[in-house]
Amino acid sequence: MMQAAVRVFAEKGYQSATIRDIVDEAGVAVGTFYFYFPDKETLFIYLYDETADFMIQPIQQAIKGRATLPMKIESAIEAYFNIGVYEPAIVHLLLLGGVGAVPALVEKRAKFRESLVGIWQQPLDQALEKGVILDQNTRRSAEALVGAIDEVILNLLGSAEPIEELPAAINDLTQFALRAIAYVG
Amino acid sequence: MMQAAVRVFAEKGYQSATIRDIVDEAGVAVGTFYFYFPDKETLFIYLYDETADFMIQPIQQAIKGRATLPMKIESAIEAYFNIGVYEPAIVHLLLLGGVGAVPALVEKRAKFRESLVGIWQQPLDQALEKGVILDQNTRRSAEALVGAIDEVILNLLGSAEPIEELPAAINDLTQFALRAIAYVG
Repeated sequence: MMQAAVRVFAEKGYQSATIRDIVDEAGVAVGTFYFYFPDKETLFIYLYDETADFMIQPIQQAIKGRATLPMKIESAIEAYFNIGVYEPAIVHLLLLGGVGAVPALVEKRAKFRESLVGIWQQPLDQALEKGVILDQNTRRSAEALVGAIDEVILNLLGSAEPIEELPAAINDLTQFALRAIAYVG
Repeated sequence: MMQAAVRVFAEKGYQSATIRDIVDEAGVAVGTFYFYFPDKETLFIYLYDETADFMIQPIQQAIKGRATLPMKIESAIEAYFNIGVYEPAIVHLLLLGGVGAVPALVEKRAKFRESLVGIWQQPLDQALEKGVILDQNTRRSAEALVGAIDEVILNLLGSAEPIEELPAAINDLTQFALRAIAYVG
């Protein structure tokens, strides 16, 4: 039912989506919905948290699992973009969906953004210590990278052939990022 | 009434804000509201368009009014961040508010983002022609810059002292951008 709900919210928007739409898409009875959630808002907040974790974990693994900064950056962008292109409804939910509609999401969104910035700042701090990037405010650079990555994936999803464009987008953005953080390694 | 409405939407979120809140904040009668707008959604969409124009014009002027690419970039970021810091409700409305709540905003938002990307791509194309930046996909670089700028301003607005931090933020992001676009002028 979770995947069905993500699709329905992405397609119709939070406000227009009904519990009926969600159970129909999932192929379950309305009673099943209410067994798990009291209302649409509770489901939406639950979905937001779940999908945020789902997006964050592969990025974290990509950054930790690679040795050099260029490989960490490329691999993290690749992980994020792969989810985005193959599960666009998730990107839609996290980056566009529902913040104005569900007041409780303002804080959840801020927490998700803060996690992303933290994940990107860590390898920048290590790189600065090792001298492979030039001196800079790594926090601000991490914020800028997070924003850059999201805008590029949203544009990619809006393009005619996201999957065909994917390798070029990953490469362009990796080069952009390495220049932006003054990589001299 | 427009400014009052922007403040109310920023504070309460689209869904929680009522027409009563808006007219109270503006100090006008409910009848005045309905003289101009049939409902809250129509007002919100109108406000979104107005504030998008309000944000875009100073950036355009900054880019056109300066001679060199570094000055264009610094001046455009400065213009955008100044509005953001002194009118945070506008940034909130454009970047966070209501897309999930008001289905018609999905398209409006896409149009606003597309305008921003276009505004940034133009000087990059000129710079590429002149050879002051290295070869790159200028469209993708413009997307990344637009995203980077928005994420930094949102973080700045969430910080303890946005106005005190403003000069450093403008400078950090200008340097980030110039490196990212491989400025060699």
